[in-house]
Amino acid sequence: MRVGVLTGGGDCPGLNAVIRGIVRKGVQEYGYDFTGFRDGWRGPLEGDTVRLDIPTVRGILPRGGTILGSSRTNPLKIEGGVRRVQENLAAEGVDALIAIGGEDTLGVAAALHREHGVKVVGVPKTIDNDLSATDYTFGFDTAVNIATEAIDRLHTTAESHMRVLVVEVMGRHAGWIALHSGLAGGANVILIPEQRFDLDQVCAWVESRFKIRYAPIVVVAEGAMPRDGDMVLKDGTLDSFGHVRLSGIGEWLANQIEKRTGKEARTTVLGHVQRGGTPSAFDRWLATRFGLHAVEAVRDGDFGKMVALRSTEIVRVPIGDATARIKTVDPSLYAEAGVFFG
Amino acid sequence: MRVGVLTGGGDCPGLNAVIRGIVRKGVQEYGYDFTGFRDGWRGPLEGDTVRLDIPTVRGILPRGGTILGSSRTNPLKIEGGVRRVQENLAAEGVDALIAIGGEDTLGVAAALHREHGVKVVGVPKTIDNDLSATDYTFGFDTAVNIATEAIDRLHTTAESHMRVLVVEVMGRHAGWIALHSGLAGGANVILIPEQRFDLDQVCAWVESRFKIRYAPIVVVAEGAMPRDGDMVLKDGTLDSFGHVRLSGIGEWLANQIEKRTGKEARTTVLGHVQRGGTPSAFDRWLATRFGLHAVEAVRDGDFGKMVALRSTEIVRVPIGDATARIKTVDPSLYAEAGVFFG
Amino acid sequence: MRVGVLTGGGDCPGLNAVIRGIVRKGVQEYGYDFTGFRDGWRGPLEGDTVRLDIPTVRGILPRGGTILGSSRTNPLKIEGGVRRVQENLAAEGVDALIAIGGEDTLGVAAALHREHGVKVVGVPKTIDNDLSATDYTFGFDTAVNIATEAIDRLHTTAESHMRVLVVEVMGRHAGWIALHSGLAGGANVILIPEQRFDLDQVCAWVESRFKIRYAPIVVVAEGAMPRDGDMVLKDGTLDSFGHVRLSGIGEWLANQIEKRTGKEARTTVLGHVQRGGTPSAFDRWLATRFGLHAVEAVRDGDFGKMVALRSTEIVRVPIGDATARIKTVDPSLYAEAGVFFG
Amino acid sequence: MRVGVLTGGGDCPGLNAVIRGIVRKGVQEYGYDFTGFRDGWRGPLEGDTVRLDIPTVRGILPRGGTILGSSRTNPLKIEGGVRRVQENLAAEGVDALIAIGGEDTLGVAAALHREHGVKVVGVPKTIDNDLSATDYTFGFDTAVNIATEAIDRLHTTAESHMRVLVVEVMGRHAGWIALHSGLAGGANVILIPEQRFDLDQVCAWVESRFKIRYAPIVVVAEGAMPRDGDMVLKDGTLDSFGHVRLSGIGEWLANQIEKRTGKEARTTVLGHVQRGGTPSAFDRWLATRFGLHAVEAVRDGDFGKMVALRSTEIVRVPIGDATARIKTVDPSLYAEAGVFFG
Repeated sequence: MRVGVLTGGGDCPGLNAVIRGIVRKGVQEYGYDFTGFRDGWRGPLEGDTVRLDIPTVRGILPRGGTILGSSRTNPLKIEGGVRRVQENLAAEGVDALIAIGGEDTLGVAAALHREHGVKVVGVPKTIDNDLSATDYTFGFDTAVNIATEAIDRLHTTAESHMRVLVVEVMGRHAGWIALHSGLAGGANVILIPEQRFDLDQVCAWVESRFKIRYAPIVVVAEGAMPRDGDMVLKDGTLDSFGHVRLSGIGEWLANQIEKRTGKEARTTVLGHVQRGGTPSAFDRWLATRFGLHAVEAVRDGDFGKMVALRSTEIVRVPIGDATARIKTVDPSLYAEAGVFFG
Repeated sequence: MRVGVLTGGGDCPGLNAVIRGIVRKGVQEYGYDFTGFRDGWRGPLEGDTVRLDIPTVRGILPRGGTILGSSRTNPLKIEGGVRRVQENLAAEGVDALIAIGGEDTLGVAAALHREHGVKVVGVPKTIDNDLSATDYTFGFDTAVNIATEAIDRLHTTAESHMRVLVVEVMGRHAGWIALHSGLAGGANVILIPEQRFDLDQVCAWVESRFKIRYAPIVVVAEGAMPRDGDMVLKDGTLDSFGHVRLSGIGEWLANQIEKRTGKEARTTVLGHVQRGGTPSAFDRWLATRFGLHAVEAVRDGDFGKMVALRSTEIVRVPIGDATARIKTVDPSLYAEAGVFFG
Repeated sequence: MRVGVLTGGGDCPGLNAVIRGIVRKGVQEYGYDFTGFRDGWRGPLEGDTVRLDIPTVRGILPRGGTILGSSRTNPLKIEGGVRRVQENLAAEGVDALIAIGGEDTLGVAAALHREHGVKVVGVPKTIDNDLSATDYTFGFDTAVNIATEAIDRLHTTAESHMRVLVVEVMGRHAGWIALHSGLAGGANVILIPEQRFDLDQVCAWVESRFKIRYAPIVVVAEGAMPRDGDMVLKDGTLDSFGHVRLSGIGEWLANQIEKRTGKEARTTVLGHVQRGGTPSAFDRWLATRFGLHAVEAVRDGDFGKMVALRSTEIVRVPIGDATARIKTVDPSLYAEAGVFFG
Repeated sequence: MRVGVLTGGGDCPGLNAVIRGIVRKGVQEYGYDFTGFRDGWRGPLEGDTVRLDIPTVRGILPRGGTILGSSRTNPLKIEGGVRRVQENLAAEGVDALIAIGGEDTLGVAAALHREHGVKVVGVPKTIDNDLSATDYTFGFDTAVNIATEAIDRLHTTAESHMRVLVVEVMGRHAGWIALHSGLAGGANVILIPEQRFDLDQVCAWVESRFKIRYAPIVVVAEGAMPRDGDMVLKDGTLDSFGHVRLSGIGEWLANQIEKRTGKEARTTVLGHVQRGGTPSAFDRWLATRFGLHAVEAVRDGDFGKMVALRSTEIVRVPIGDATARIKTVDPSLYAEAGVFFG
């Protein structure tokens, strides 16, 4: 039995832990051989492979990134792409494929399985935690810890000075990182993409903070937008992803708060720092178990499925479930955090 | 409405986050007043109280320990203890009580509610994660992160030298910290209290590691014991908790491995470092939500209940459920980790 | 003997450690009383004091910020300011004053001592490490560690993706943080205020990196500028400090690199995260010793002096020495780092 | 020109940073070739080499340990050892050798240079910071940070409970790690090898702490001993290094304090955790510069020298200077810390 493995989409702490889990169990318990495909779906598309055995996975558990490389290549969007993937899998003698990735990568996996009978098992991956079929995805806990530590450090300045501190965190379409890190860091305002914010309300919260001689900390997801979205457009430009490019929402917000409240505002933009480096213990544990259970699904011939976390158990769900709809922050959960605002 | 709050048992990162969550929501949303009782059940027993309002909970979110203090005082074991607790609650005008603690503290809460009608809501707390009614308890994730970071650092020495590295972590009766940190840290041997270990097997794993020029890392829970427990007794002395006192199981194991394999062994004993300091983001999030939901249970008049984590939801379960039996590591889960041994 | 203490200027990890060192030694060894002045020179100017004794300094060692508060108030620039300071010092019965601060705060101290005979001892403070009379100032090591950790995390993405990663760090006039964190983090380009950069050269370094399949990491001090400074002006606006406000030099540089190389670029702006939170061990050691030696200088009646680090010794130098000229990065030191560029 | 490189003695964070600095500058600026010798002096003794060029040093900057391996092999103590080293250096075409190590490793280097004309440059390495010719050695700052973080976490328990917390840190013959981490962590007692401690005095300090409802934290260097050393011998056994083996001085001390004060005591033994893992920013900066300057000394033909840190400059001193005498903690420096005891 030869099993292919690939990692697609943006990088995420824990990818290497999944790969290691798959290979260790696959080789030692089932006697499988493995073929690593380079750079997501580009690997099987172009027949670009990399060695994958016990020695190659040694020492990778604590390392961020992915030893297989990644890309956003989509064979479904390439003329003859599916056929080339099938041919290359056959040429490499690959009997089954484990695809580790987010919505796009797993979308390809689902289509290949459903329409072309490719034997695929999926492992969900998104730093934003916005896949609906699993309680958590690995990488999220690491990102939240990093953002929380940054907020912790800002409290010092908040105690000593009279400045507004704005922290922009990841989250284009879902505010999980903002919500969790804002709650864990004791932020005074948390703004998420799921709910357009009212700039007057934000400024009112900011003002109320100064009354207790403790400056406000505002956590804003990169995809958050004011009620009147045109305001942003007037000050910055949106790139092709609908993301404000020139200054980012954090910098825009800091400028607006300065203008309206007369208080100096400073911005922190964590950027890719949130998705790099060594995974947290939770993410390593989750990613390792995802790997172990993915190769177990291969052994069971349970294809078209994806591993997922439910409570403390790893279960299998149809790959399509994960990609059907994005998991956004529930309004009631956001409201729960509201007691700490202002 | 006046609500009492107390924290009992060993300290645990996140206790302050629970207290803050309770007070912020209780005061701001329900208009409650709060009375803090000092040092667990000693507080209501002796009428020892401390101020608990919005200003007193400011800035405590990231701090380990508990601003209320803690103790192992048990009013059920003290002549007239229950009556004194009831009298002092009445004297303070306390209508309901939120008890944050482990098996013992919640056991008292359950008895007071069941037999004496005291209006109690419980919040589960154990660094060892061994309470059966909840997926996780706060503090556990912090402890696992600390132990994992220590193991990470030992890998450096393991790469460079030919030494056996033994790490003793917390866990008297349950091996959760050893299992999670061992898995996350890439340990080669994980020993837990739930399953007596075979010293010959441990030495065999150790020997097999040296063949790949990479020294073995052995993670051992403080409560782990060899099959032949008398061996330990011969070398050390057991204290009243049945815990080897003179040198600890870690040091004992290192000595045994040295004698049997002829390889030098070094021990790390993390001790209380694991239960101190700032909580991880996950623990702050969990503890904060436990606090918010505990005070919500008080508002609903849903007494005799304890908040618990199920998947990503906070639910309420009878307090008795938490203390009925200890949650130990399932043999199948331990077996799953076995692929990384040796 | 009553000694006043104040902290001025921007906050900096280690300020509390200095205060604690002063008070512990002053009270226990010399029997001094202390008066804390609030918010830098605003305190003596307005007679705003705060209690400062053994209990008030308990537990502050690991905490960022300053329990005394800070400000940029300058009594020399206020009509009658000096006289009011002298009157308030007399009114409080303060015999000597320890001023902890940077160029501005110590400049006031030097003038008060020189021209008005105020008995002052200085403790140097600047997160940027740009004071010439001391090897290091506390806070700098903490800032460098934080920036280095951020760069470490970016390497993961650099390994996995084909993106340019730009990190903007503190340093308006001196590039010490950029140089040290860039060197420690393994950055491929380090840009400092002391030397205008050539955008073509930066892009050449960036391009050369992609050839080894490892994306470039560019560390840029906030005060760094291209040879043709007008370029920045065309894209952003300078605020009154001469600092590009709309997007910062980091974001500007990322945009320029994108345009010129066609490679996607992402920015991290650490901002105040670098100057907050718990100090590193080195900074606590240095700050504590500065405190101990400052109060020793008071005991010796050695006024008009500032404590400073020389090698591993704490020495005393005239306060004026510290403020005479800024300590910038020597061209030869910057050249030494050049071997790692590109 | 071909330059050999070896690393000897115990591992130390920063070794890889030195190697990288040497190779990057040597190859890029001087066009040198490099030969890595495996496992300290065992490499040249047995002609065991490893590739050492730009690609092999990529990515090693943040990693603990040494890619060259290490050992305590001493060719001076082996019949014909020196001759074999000379023959193997000649066979490999090695013109000069850079030896990175502590007292023993550099002692061999000094002898080979002095008595046999081998062209050697030394780089000092000791985690304990006890080499007299340099202000600091790399690895020390990392160890102090790790120990300080552990002490920080113990303060939580100290605040909440009534227990004595003993932390055993590294330092056989010099108490630098204990002194710096104890001072930075706010320990109440610091015990170092340079000064035998009085158990009665330790217990008095411990008792005085409990009066302020804050438990004492005792930091003890592994080589510290009570005035009456026989006490330890009665309770434990000394191994061949003169180090108490069965329980360590930390555990011994905790037991003694329990017996004498009746207070429960808990021990943390950090062990090899202190010398592993990623180096601090300071250690990476120092190690990198040591590497750059060592290869510069080779280029200058300045053999028999060792690089050293003096203030913020890297200088060269005779190798013999470093190994002549151990740098211990000066009594006046230890006395300075005494203000925080008890």
